[in-house]
Amino acid sequence: MNFSLKTSEISHFLGNNEKEKINNQILRVMKVKAAVALEAGKPLTIETVDLQPPQAGEVLVEIKATGVCHTDAYTLSGKDPEGLFPSILGHEGAGVVVEVGKNVKSLKVGDCVIPLYIPECRECEYCLSFKTNLCQAIRVTQGKGVMPDGTSRFSLDGKPLYHYMGTSTFANYTVVPEIALAKIPSDVPFEKVCYIGCGVTTGIGAVINTAKVEAGANVIVFGLGGIGLNVIQACRMVGADMIIGVDINNSKKAIASKFGMTHFVNPKEIEGDLVSYLVELTKGGADYTFECIGNVNVMRQALESCHKGWGVSTIVGVAGAGEEISTRPFQLVTGRVWKGTAFGGAKGRTDVPKIVEWYQSGKINIDDLITHVMPLEEINTAFDLMHKGESIRSVITF
Amino acid sequence: MNFSLKTSEISHFLGNNEKEKINNQILRVMKVKAAVALEAGKPLTIETVDLQPPQAGEVLVEIKATGVCHTDAYTLSGKDPEGLFPSILGHEGAGVVVEVGKNVKSLKVGDCVIPLYIPECRECEYCLSFKTNLCQAIRVTQGKGVMPDGTSRFSLDGKPLYHYMGTSTFANYTVVPEIALAKIPSDVPFEKVCYIGCGVTTGIGAVINTAKVEAGANVIVFGLGGIGLNVIQACRMVGADMIIGVDINNSKKAIASKFGMTHFVNPKEIEGDLVSYLVELTKGGADYTFECIGNVNVMRQALESCHKGWGVSTIVGVAGAGEEISTRPFQLVTGRVWKGTAFGGAKGRTDVPKIVEWYQSGKINIDDLITHVMPLEEINTAFDLMHKGESIRSVITF
Repeated sequence: MNFSLKTSEISHFLGNNEKEKINNQILRVMKVKAAVALEAGKPLTIETVDLQPPQAGEVLVEIKATGVCHTDAYTLSGKDPEGLFPSILGHEGAGVVVEVGKNVKSLKVGDCVIPLYIPECRECEYCLSFKTNLCQAIRVTQGKGVMPDGTSRFSLDGKPLYHYMGTSTFANYTVVPEIALAKIPSDVPFEKVCYIGCGVTTGIGAVINTAKVEAGANVIVFGLGGIGLNVIQACRMVGADMIIGVDINNSKKAIASKFGMTHFVNPKEIEGDLVSYLVELTKGGADYTFECIGNVNVMRQALESCHKGWGVSTIVGVAGAGEEISTRPFQLVTGRVWKGTAFGGAKGRTDVPKIVEWYQSGKINIDDLITHVMPLEEINTAFDLMHKGESIRSVITF
Repeated sequence: MNFSLKTSEISHFLGNNEKEKINNQILRVMKVKAAVALEAGKPLTIETVDLQPPQAGEVLVEIKATGVCHTDAYTLSGKDPEGLFPSILGHEGAGVVVEVGKNVKSLKVGDCVIPLYIPECRECEYCLSFKTNLCQAIRVTQGKGVMPDGTSRFSLDGKPLYHYMGTSTFANYTVVPEIALAKIPSDVPFEKVCYIGCGVTTGIGAVINTAKVEAGANVIVFGLGGIGLNVIQACRMVGADMIIGVDINNSKKAIASKFGMTHFVNPKEIEGDLVSYLVELTKGGADYTFECIGNVNVMRQALESCHKGWGVSTIVGVAGAGEEISTRPFQLVTGRVWKGTAFGGAKGRTDVPKIVEWYQSGKINIDDLITHVMPLEEINTAFDLMHKGESIRSVITF
């Protein structure tokens, strides 16, 4: 990374042509409004930051709306061992292409897009395996908070800011690699479809890509937050029979029922063992269970609530660093399967546009999940609402 | 169960017709030679025991050969919490139908058969799911050591002996439910194909039914005992590329190579972490791994040696009672799948005859796995050889 070299220092080593190029770049630096995570555990601060133009294979996107997700909060808290500061967080955005860098072929100015924190290069071993969505094309640089060339496009007072998850959507403009942008229809409400950039696709994809729930199946969903509700509506979409929601908060019952939940179980209100209760309720265990909380104890309950012989339990929630799951191997030897999902197993450029169309055609409901909309200046309120459990999803509009 | 009632006591409550029937039954009791497990932790004793004729839906089988398996040893040791004594162990037999009870339709006298400790009724919810081999038709009575009508056919000095796994093949004659017998070709060597009744099918089925290994896959097999070797030859049969065997005993290398192993790893001979070593050897992790030992720590290594994105780890070994497996959920969220298998996911009446044919046509090798053949009187030697690690499989012939 060249973060520590100033332009004036670099220019010592360059000829006149190169100097001119660099001066042109500097002239083209944009002033962008962003919520910056200066350090872990502190509120975001609204800053005017500098944004370099897109380089080869990159795209400048005007972000129109972005959701605020638990993953942003996790990183901001400092508990994420891979968190980098100072950075611009945000990974659930939607916007419009403003400029394309050299060699960008699949997108043009004016295209509506959703940034993808898991790209889809369609060339790496992972993409070509047809067994996973975990494209590795830019994983290393993305993990280091920089663009594929090893540098950042953002800076504040001359000092570089890290990108976050390759997306950094808490800014009204951002630069994203072409392979990390899904082109979507142009006639969509950004403040709704931005949620497809993470939560919606994670929940729906877990059902259709990872677990592959079929019509007639019995399902248990642990945790009725945003992800759990999307799991529920996907189960309804594919024709599941029993869709059991499990949550310690009775206030979730109404919205979950609206999304397709057929039975509600509050673990605090049942007598005895939760797993035994659920196995009885499903007459032998669920065909599919989903853990949508990130609690390792619930992950075990979700596995053990599965039907002997064929039950599949999918971990969707993200556990704390270093936490472990456990069970007796007998659970697996007698036919239960334990798996997990990231971004719902969705290949972003291929699958995200489909989910946008499902929203447009009314097959899935996003509107009822967006409980709060606010300007960037109030983004810390969005985090507060999340921590208090008062929002399903807060969206920032620019 | 009527175990405690003697025939003379029962006859007090019966009319003449019933008395006559019972007398006929008593007349038809056979004298059978069996190795009896009188109590946990003691050697088997060779006894002449009484065997009642097959009842409705049951079949009398002359056992011609039986393998001696770790599961027999586990139950005999007293560590199996479901073990019952006194009983006749043995679950890996092959023989000939001698008599069929009422309503038996699929078998006739003279048919060659392999008893199945997991039956296949083709009528229960499990059989009809097409998702599992764990037929539940007679699970409860089988677990109690009796035939489906709740009684035992075996007795010693007038006291009932428990059946074991519904098969009790450590006797020269046994009674087995029709749904727990696979009909096999008649021109087979019993002392070889008996091994298909457990070990062979477990290993081969784990590959083709549970993991579904495909041509070109990279595979790691942990533990090169009888099960591991059968996993290896199944991987070769389906066209796997790398077939890595892991064992702490270098003497396993020769036979494993003969069965298709392409790379051997002795964990004691490598420097550093075994999982890292295996991930590097497979350039990112194995497509499929199999734990064939029953060690919960190795089960974790097997999962974590899987390739990110799509690696599938299958538990074949049976862990000790109460032992638990654990891992970080991140392993699953990034695409690894943890599953297990019982009897290789094989539906016995359907799949066992196919595996016998594969043996006949030379697609699989059983002969080299049968290292010792001995008469029933020497059965305790077979257990000794197993405990010393000197046999792959010992077979008893009658």
